[in-house]
Amino acid sequence: MAKGFQTLPGFRDFYPDDCAARNYVFEKWRTVAQRYGFVEYEGPVLEPTDLYKKKSGDEIVHQLFCFTDKGERDVSMRPELTPTLARMAAARQRDFKKPLKWFSIGQFFRYEKQQKGRGREFYQFNCDILGEPSPAADAELVALSIDLMRDLGFTANDFKIRLSDRNAWTDFATRSGVPTEKLTEFLQVIDKLERESDDKTAAKLEPLGISLESIRDFIANGESASEVITTILADLGARGMADFVEVDLNIVRGLAYYTGAVFEVFDIGKGMRAVAGGGRYDELVNLIGNVDMPAAGFAMGDMVITDLIRETEAPNARLSAGMAGAQSVDIFVVVADEEKRSQSLEIVQQLRKSGYRVAYPYSAAKVGKQFQAAEQQGAQIAIVVGSEFPIVTIKNLEIRLETTCRFEDFEEELMKLLLPG
Amino acid sequence: MAKGFQTLPGFRDFYPDDCAARNYVFEKWRTVAQRYGFVEYEGPVLEPTDLYKKKSGDEIVHQLFCFTDKGERDVSMRPELTPTLARMAAARQRDFKKPLKWFSIGQFFRYEKQQKGRGREFYQFNCDILGEPSPAADAELVALSIDLMRDLGFTANDFKIRLSDRNAWTDFATRSGVPTEKLTEFLQVIDKLERESDDKTAAKLEPLGISLESIRDFIANGESASEVITTILADLGARGMADFVEVDLNIVRGLAYYTGAVFEVFDIGKGMRAVAGGGRYDELVNLIGNVDMPAAGFAMGDMVITDLIRETEAPNARLSAGMAGAQSVDIFVVVADEEKRSQSLEIVQQLRKSGYRVAYPYSAAKVGKQFQAAEQQGAQIAIVVGSEFPIVTIKNLEIRLETTCRFEDFEEELMKLLLPG
Repeated sequence: MAKGFQTLPGFRDFYPDDCAARNYVFEKWRTVAQRYGFVEYEGPVLEPTDLYKKKSGDEIVHQLFCFTDKGERDVSMRPELTPTLARMAAARQRDFKKPLKWFSIGQFFRYEKQQKGRGREFYQFNCDILGEPSPAADAELVALSIDLMRDLGFTANDFKIRLSDRNAWTDFATRSGVPTEKLTEFLQVIDKLERESDDKTAAKLEPLGISLESIRDFIANGESASEVITTILADLGARGMADFVEVDLNIVRGLAYYTGAVFEVFDIGKGMRAVAGGGRYDELVNLIGNVDMPAAGFAMGDMVITDLIRETEAPNARLSAGMAGAQSVDIFVVVADEEKRSQSLEIVQQLRKSGYRVAYPYSAAKVGKQFQAAEQQGAQIAIVVGSEFPIVTIKNLEIRLETTCRFEDFEEELMKLLLPG
Repeated sequence: MAKGFQTLPGFRDFYPDDCAARNYVFEKWRTVAQRYGFVEYEGPVLEPTDLYKKKSGDEIVHQLFCFTDKGERDVSMRPELTPTLARMAAARQRDFKKPLKWFSIGQFFRYEKQQKGRGREFYQFNCDILGEPSPAADAELVALSIDLMRDLGFTANDFKIRLSDRNAWTDFATRSGVPTEKLTEFLQVIDKLERESDDKTAAKLEPLGISLESIRDFIANGESASEVITTILADLGARGMADFVEVDLNIVRGLAYYTGAVFEVFDIGKGMRAVAGGGRYDELVNLIGNVDMPAAGFAMGDMVITDLIRETEAPNARLSAGMAGAQSVDIFVVVADEEKRSQSLEIVQQLRKSGYRVAYPYSAAKVGKQFQAAEQQGAQIAIVVGSEFPIVTIKNLEIRLETTCRFEDFEEELMKLLLPG
């Protein structure tokens, strides 16, 4: 403790710059979701551990910040939102018109080995449509993820949607004679296709009576692999978004709870990472909440997307502008004469009432120092209140223009300086 | 588990309405803080338990969600932000110009008995000025809290600032001959003044050589009790805020870590509750981070203020309008003919690109049902795409005006309908 307290490993301090970057991403998430007609919700950060076991099995406990609370409850800091969403939607399903179009921005916790793009704490955007079985809902979610990336400043050169359908694979397997009880095993082979050698894959496929070649053929003709895929492609085409989408049946997205179309937002410009992903999970609400409700959704974490923004020129420029805007004031009131502090405060307060962001010095300081502070805080305007009061000087620090006027007129003169000409 | 999963006691689900109310309060917190030139930061939700013990003593553990993590660390879900702020400010104090004007909006956790206005989880707005010893900083914080209340719609009839100064009391005690080692005991008596009987208080004061009458006199002349109070009053007076402030030396705000001026935002219209509070704590940054840094700040929780908003007419009307705005779409595209779904999607996407919030049905539905959905979602405009395409109909649902036009012209015609006349 001699060196003072430290942040826990995998946790982050958000100093003002980091917080402004975080808020910039949050704001994009929120704005685009609302443009798609989604409404925001949020669940508790702490839930009964059983909620996560129910969805993911007992193994999940190894990744959880779980503990026994003072009331002897087994609780966990949430590692994901979907079980909570399923619980909430099921509990009050009668209160809402279907489909529910819900998004959320919140923090999650996983006790994992730290690595780039992964901490023990992260924020996640969750966007889900519940109560709608049509592939139009899947297409809407894909479109939303595309527009989100575009709003962040990414183009078709920077990312791709990799679209797939788990049902296409289960249908393929069934047609090929794979027995139902072997379907999970088969999907696991597909999930590892890109990471394992052809020999190993072929060896695993043999007992299932499927050749690697037939798998390759099926993947090569992905665009017609299922009606769901065809429908989603047509929908996105009508929106003018065909360029962003690529059918890629290699995507199975683990084995957890997906039941139909799945997709990833995949970075093709830089590190080839998945920045978002999701799909259809028609059985989870029933598993958690005993209510039949088809559902589809996707999630985007804050860490990979922020790395990608910083690595990509146009998105990074937008981020920087957003960060500067959030942290700057509009006007700095320079108290050039301490005798006029009361009058300065009156001006400060009047400007704030008009909605401007205003700063001023809390204690006596040289005028030069105050102008430095004004520039550091990004003020466009300085208003100098000195011994000449009721005459004040208004300076536009950006276009180096100034004017003097009587105190009563300063807001009018300010408007002229803000919109010169 | 037969009845399905439940939210943990003291934790909240934020369904869309609740979330919109929460976000409304967040937005006010953020906007007013920024208008005062404060920048946002955030710390980790999980910290070493020792950080809280260091500030508040071992007793604090009884209120904490604390546990041992998988790495054998004693950790706690944060019950408050100030220790984290002190740690962060001390760790990078050289990187920032003084004074630091920082605010934060985050979630906190205390294992407490549940009661109205208090859960085991709550959000809190924290607003602090670090590195500035002048009472001008204290006044700025009081002013910010006043403007926050006004922005929420409260008037001088609804709330009061109760301003006090702990140093006024310690000076009083020292003048009255109370020895230094008895100062804490003395402050505890003052802290309980309003809650205990006069007899009990007098009995406690006697061994300290102080009469209850002298205490009453001192309180009655609170406005001149210390130079700090006089300065803060003058500062707030210059801002035109004198009406909102009342010196009340009964306020000591517990005994924790305050070292000077303290204040509460106190509801006088309804339940007479403190909705926010804070003060100067010049020694905490040193205690936590071994760096001398004067500091002052205040915090406002989300639960009491939201209750108060809902109980007060004008603030509640503003809240309702904000909630409706956050959850509504601008335009609903009615797919009157499924054959024209592609064309509808094109229109949807074009409108979203222009920044409108747009919804449409994901599957075939009767036109009447679709208009119902449009109204439920608060749409001002419906655009009907049917068999007449490329002719579309645009309806302003609020002023019951409609027009038809060719597809190519719909955005232009829409503008006219949005701004009729």
